[in-house]
Amino acid sequence: MNLDYIIPNKWSILEEGFDPDHVKASESLFSIGNGAMGQRANFEEKYSGPTFQGSYIAGVYYPDKTKVGWWKNGYPEYFAKVLNAPSWIGINVTINGEELDLFACKSVKNFRRELNMKEGWLSRSFVATLQNDIEVEVSSKRFLSLDLDEVGAINFSIKPLNSDAEITFQPYIDAGITNEDTNWDDKFWDVLNVTRENNQAFIQAKTMKTEFHTCTFMESQVYVDGELLSNEPTFTEGTSYAAFSYTNKVKQNETYSIHKFGGYTVDRNHSKNELISAAKKSLEKAKTTGFTQMLEDQKQAWAQIWDMADITIDGDVKAQQGIRFNIFHLNQTYLGTDATLNIGPKGFTGEKYGGSTYWDTEAYCIPFYMATKDQEVARNLLTYRYNHLEKAIENAEKLGFTNGAALYPMVTMNGEESHNEWEITFEEIHRNGAIAYAIFNYYRYTGDFSYIPEMGLEVLIAIARFWHQRANYSTQKNKYVILGVTGPNEYENNVNNNWYTNYIAEWCINYAIEMIDKVKAGHPNDYKRISGKTKITHEEVSAWKKVADNMYYPYSEEHKVYLQQDGFLDKELITVEDLDQSQRPINQKWSWDRILRSPYIKQADTLQGFYFFEDQFTTEELERHFDFYEPFTVHESSLSPCVHSIQAAKLNRMNQAYTFYLRTSRLDLDDYNHEVHEGLHITSMAGTWMSIVEGFGGMRVKNDSLSFEPRIPEQWKGYSFKVNFRNQIVKVSVKQNETQFELEGDKELQIMVNGKEVTISPDNSVVI
Amino acid sequence: MNLDYIIPNKWSILEEGFDPDHVKASESLFSIGNGAMGQRANFEEKYSGPTFQGSYIAGVYYPDKTKVGWWKNGYPEYFAKVLNAPSWIGINVTINGEELDLFACKSVKNFRRELNMKEGWLSRSFVATLQNDIEVEVSSKRFLSLDLDEVGAINFSIKPLNSDAEITFQPYIDAGITNEDTNWDDKFWDVLNVTRENNQAFIQAKTMKTEFHTCTFMESQVYVDGELLSNEPTFTEGTSYAAFSYTNKVKQNETYSIHKFGGYTVDRNHSKNELISAAKKSLEKAKTTGFTQMLEDQKQAWAQIWDMADITIDGDVKAQQGIRFNIFHLNQTYLGTDATLNIGPKGFTGEKYGGSTYWDTEAYCIPFYMATKDQEVARNLLTYRYNHLEKAIENAEKLGFTNGAALYPMVTMNGEESHNEWEITFEEIHRNGAIAYAIFNYYRYTGDFSYIPEMGLEVLIAIARFWHQRANYSTQKNKYVILGVTGPNEYENNVNNNWYTNYIAEWCINYAIEMIDKVKAGHPNDYKRISGKTKITHEEVSAWKKVADNMYYPYSEEHKVYLQQDGFLDKELITVEDLDQSQRPINQKWSWDRILRSPYIKQADTLQGFYFFEDQFTTEELERHFDFYEPFTVHESSLSPCVHSIQAAKLNRMNQAYTFYLRTSRLDLDDYNHEVHEGLHITSMAGTWMSIVEGFGGMRVKNDSLSFEPRIPEQWKGYSFKVNFRNQIVKVSVKQNETQFELEGDKELQIMVNGKEVTISPDNSVVI
Repeated sequence: MNLDYIIPNKWSILEEGFDPDHVKASESLFSIGNGAMGQRANFEEKYSGPTFQGSYIAGVYYPDKTKVGWWKNGYPEYFAKVLNAPSWIGINVTINGEELDLFACKSVKNFRRELNMKEGWLSRSFVATLQNDIEVEVSSKRFLSLDLDEVGAINFSIKPLNSDAEITFQPYIDAGITNEDTNWDDKFWDVLNVTRENNQAFIQAKTMKTEFHTCTFMESQVYVDGELLSNEPTFTEGTSYAAFSYTNKVKQNETYSIHKFGGYTVDRNHSKNELISAAKKSLEKAKTTGFTQMLEDQKQAWAQIWDMADITIDGDVKAQQGIRFNIFHLNQTYLGTDATLNIGPKGFTGEKYGGSTYWDTEAYCIPFYMATKDQEVARNLLTYRYNHLEKAIENAEKLGFTNGAALYPMVTMNGEESHNEWEITFEEIHRNGAIAYAIFNYYRYTGDFSYIPEMGLEVLIAIARFWHQRANYSTQKNKYVILGVTGPNEYENNVNNNWYTNYIAEWCINYAIEMIDKVKAGHPNDYKRISGKTKITHEEVSAWKKVADNMYYPYSEEHKVYLQQDGFLDKELITVEDLDQSQRPINQKWSWDRILRSPYIKQADTLQGFYFFEDQFTTEELERHFDFYEPFTVHESSLSPCVHSIQAAKLNRMNQAYTFYLRTSRLDLDDYNHEVHEGLHITSMAGTWMSIVEGFGGMRVKNDSLSFEPRIPEQWKGYSFKVNFRNQIVKVSVKQNETQFELEGDKELQIMVNGKEVTISPDNSVVI
Repeated sequence: MNLDYIIPNKWSILEEGFDPDHVKASESLFSIGNGAMGQRANFEEKYSGPTFQGSYIAGVYYPDKTKVGWWKNGYPEYFAKVLNAPSWIGINVTINGEELDLFACKSVKNFRRELNMKEGWLSRSFVATLQNDIEVEVSSKRFLSLDLDEVGAINFSIKPLNSDAEITFQPYIDAGITNEDTNWDDKFWDVLNVTRENNQAFIQAKTMKTEFHTCTFMESQVYVDGELLSNEPTFTEGTSYAAFSYTNKVKQNETYSIHKFGGYTVDRNHSKNELISAAKKSLEKAKTTGFTQMLEDQKQAWAQIWDMADITIDGDVKAQQGIRFNIFHLNQTYLGTDATLNIGPKGFTGEKYGGSTYWDTEAYCIPFYMATKDQEVARNLLTYRYNHLEKAIENAEKLGFTNGAALYPMVTMNGEESHNEWEITFEEIHRNGAIAYAIFNYYRYTGDFSYIPEMGLEVLIAIARFWHQRANYSTQKNKYVILGVTGPNEYENNVNNNWYTNYIAEWCINYAIEMIDKVKAGHPNDYKRISGKTKITHEEVSAWKKVADNMYYPYSEEHKVYLQQDGFLDKELITVEDLDQSQRPINQKWSWDRILRSPYIKQADTLQGFYFFEDQFTTEELERHFDFYEPFTVHESSLSPCVHSIQAAKLNRMNQAYTFYLRTSRLDLDDYNHEVHEGLHITSMAGTWMSIVEGFGGMRVKNDSLSFEPRIPEQWKGYSFKVNFRNQIVKVSVKQNETQFELEGDKELQIMVNGKEVTISPDNSVVI
């Protein structure tokens, strides 16, 4: 734990007292978003201290020219960067001629910041004494509307406490924006025009290269003690800037406030020529509704999300705060309504990692969205990959594959690869497996087979083709081997026969064959279309099968475990416990070669396979592998603790499971990885949800039914969660001695609890 | 072969006819150098067509800020770039107001370019018709003086053929120079001042960051029909530019010529404040000697070099031209008088690869310099590494090594690493072995043991320490293993137990121990100093020995060969012959992962070990390994064919040896690798020399004696070479039926020929 200034609270993230050293971390932690846009918790007024400014629009990115030390054939020309967008939140405040700036005040008292997760708003209040000795009380409240997702609203108030004052609010919009993360210091935005109409201002700007057209807009109203003022503002404009000024003499203890509405219209939703008129419509709706009613609507909208997605934890405020923080940010990032969007690793909270889509989506996020939203949401995430299939085939062609084999990119925005380290881009190919697995997982959970004949089977065929070609026959071993890969544990590069990769390759082929047969039998017309398009033949499938049936797996007879890769046992097998702690984290202390030849594991690798394919191994096998690999695992990926928490719970090691749970759920709140100022770890937040539902709750889908093996950490009195299973809502409440199952739905549901069949019905809760 | 416009000639490189498409290639091929400076064969007069301008000063480099895609701990902050230096060769020529520019003339006839390797000069002549219809005959001759190594001289003449003409020569010096190879488009030179004194001009400039101070200078004289003119030139200067203009009315068929002397003084040889006065002295010497006499001196100086270094080939002009081209360029690049300089991979012919020193020096260049120069030269090359020992220890510390272990850099200028690909920088550690091997090789060849107690032993100890720490014990194998390396075959990265690396590691430890014992016994005072400094103990040496004695080697019982690395036999073993030729060269056609998992070998790897340690294997073993590995070798490194040529010769496969020989000796002349425009492959040129002397001549040192097993390709009538063996010169002349041995020296010499002892003496040549 590296930060602990966040005040524990069940429903809010709270900070009290102003510390400039916390500003960047808080800007990340208090970020707000509504799926369509998001922003770091930057101050509205000027701030001259260290800050990391960030506003982001979903789907708007920039193809930054790739930077490499040494070019390798097949590298992508560009890296898709998350783009810092024009800002609409700014309100310069001048009090008797002095600008309000928390970094330059004489004193700041009663500073308080709150991210109210229950209701979806951010607030801030403080009392500041300026250099001119005027003391003012300031408060602001801000949110990005879930209902009107192009609009955000701010209520910013100021009250002079020790004298009358002349106060100016200068709300502005600014498109003179740069990225911190840029390879070549390129300019990313091209401002097209700045226009004003009455009290509204608009800046039209497009991104360079990708030519995303956007309109950033604002309109404000000012009040004294709640009474609307009608004085006309003055207007200032620059080439990429527009501002209104509202100046008023304010009496001591009067409250001068401004309601500012702003946001973006973008050409994903409107035609380029109608961005301003769309903006006007949005502003009109916001103004008509008014700040107060919009905030009410916001609370309602979040209440609906929480009703389904909330997890309660009784008796452990920090754990409760942690899980809600994770669920809240996931929902701020992606709401699932758009199949062209995805879940970026930093969401709307920072620029790092570029791209928007990693295998995190399939491996970690889909279970969360499947269980807490309508199935359409998970289907959209699958459709996203289906829409990128053609580009994945092109990507594989660049690497020498043929016949419609697909390799999905490691990182992407639009389906094209944007990563460029050969050991990752070209070799971390197990990502293909996660994409097939997500199809299987979706079908298993939702029972919605229709996705497979409609879209999924084409993806499965292209992935099976890849594995078939990527494996080669070793005469030496009389088996098929997969050489030169990087597994989920990125602390090994270019290894041979990574067990996880080989296993998922075999699984992908077998699953593709199974689905081919099922579609052929049950959806002959779809099969005809697909086989016409893919030119799949019986001979080809037989060739795949030969590879799957003869896959090689490194195994240790001595330890009775599958080996992470060929040669793993040649390493110096010192456990993490016995490693000098001054050497941690090894990714900051050691050179890359040293990391590679060490036995240390960044995140679940062999154990990731045991997580995905749990049914195919006994608990004893899981235990043996867990005991063999976990001691070498440094968990230096945010994606590591959750899988281990789930497995520790399954092995009834609740203390260990609880420790992993805390680490995953408060990763950012407590800044375990020394990097929260750069933004939050959004995708791993879904892993936290899995730790509770799959880990402690022991939820699985078996034979078309939900199955639970509830456990509870001794630190908790109880916890509860809901899952949407095939359009019925099951609520699970676990206490130290009993578990209650409730059903919101219209028909009885058979579930399994600790291996026994239980029937729950809408009227009767069941306690076990 | 991709270019064949160079006219075969025994002593010259010749080009006839002007083709703008050949300009860049010829600029490389006709490059001149004198060890202290060098330059591409750029034209003196303006040339508006495609050209790659380059002038280089030995030891002057720039630490260009490293460019990486993803930073890894331990990467160097900068990459030492070969620096394009201010130019002194330029002479603008104006004829009746029109600038002479071969790319803009109406016609060019009788174009001829010659690099006279025997005498060490470059000439060019042509007849051009300008747009103004004046026809002129132009000739130039240029050389960089071996005697006055700060000075070069140009004789540039022009004769109007069809009318009188007003002609201006405008000789200039220019420090407004940029690099083509720059990571961030930085400016590398900072011009301090431009000064004129009478007919001399000077530009003082220093490199940014490294602050190498240089003075570029010139002085010229003009003549009509050989008669010195005394008219005063006009002077023009800019912030980084100085020019004189000499304008004269020249009658039809009169020859107007200019002798221009120019060059550099640098602060490696003079104090910073005396660069101009040193330049004046150099100019004074050059002017006093005069162009004609300087050229005479140049011929003499080159005659001396050739007397020792020449290899003659009778009956094969292209082979003759090839070998002399290689020997000539090696001598232009490095003359061995300065232990702070080394042999850059492109010498003074281009910018690529940066740095100046790779393991090429120890593995390929030292044998050439040992045999064709005084032993002091090879000793200087060894001393260069001794002087960098401290930085090699620091480099190893950055990678986690302790106790004075050294890892020499992959690429360096000043001893610091300047390479940044983890798989090379951190893992291609066999380079340490080549540095130890060069010490062994030097002692074996020269018999000069003194280097070892004076300097070599410290290097050997630091290298042995590295290997001891780098290996780890595998309980699985009950042996020591070396994990995560890149061998000489860079088409494999991060492999385990590269046989060559393991072998040379063991050898380094054993050789260090042997030398410790020898120094301890024979030079107790030196040993005392060294052991005091290195704190070497008996216990430490025992620990080394344990590693050396228990080193693991991958071996195939089936093929009876050592395996290049663990898992080599799992590859798809299709030979190069059976590989679709459209896929070649694979480094241009395939993505990196595909190269890595293929069996294809870039350059000798296991066979490099068989080359270095030939005595430790039987000819049958060599044959088995050659037959196993060569068929998978694509020879896509310039360093590949020579080792294979030597081994093919040893195996009596003369046709194959000859094919490899042609490929290495005419690599650049025939542009096998499509890249001669970027500069020449200087270090591999020493491999060509080895192909003849060690390959065809079969020269080895065995038991302190020279040994020969002469062979001759059927395409040749005969060949001859000389070697300096311990201050006696042995000349070997091989014909189809006999070999003659002659001795220049003062005492009898025992040599071995085809395994039999032969005595040669200064008076009596021996024919066998």
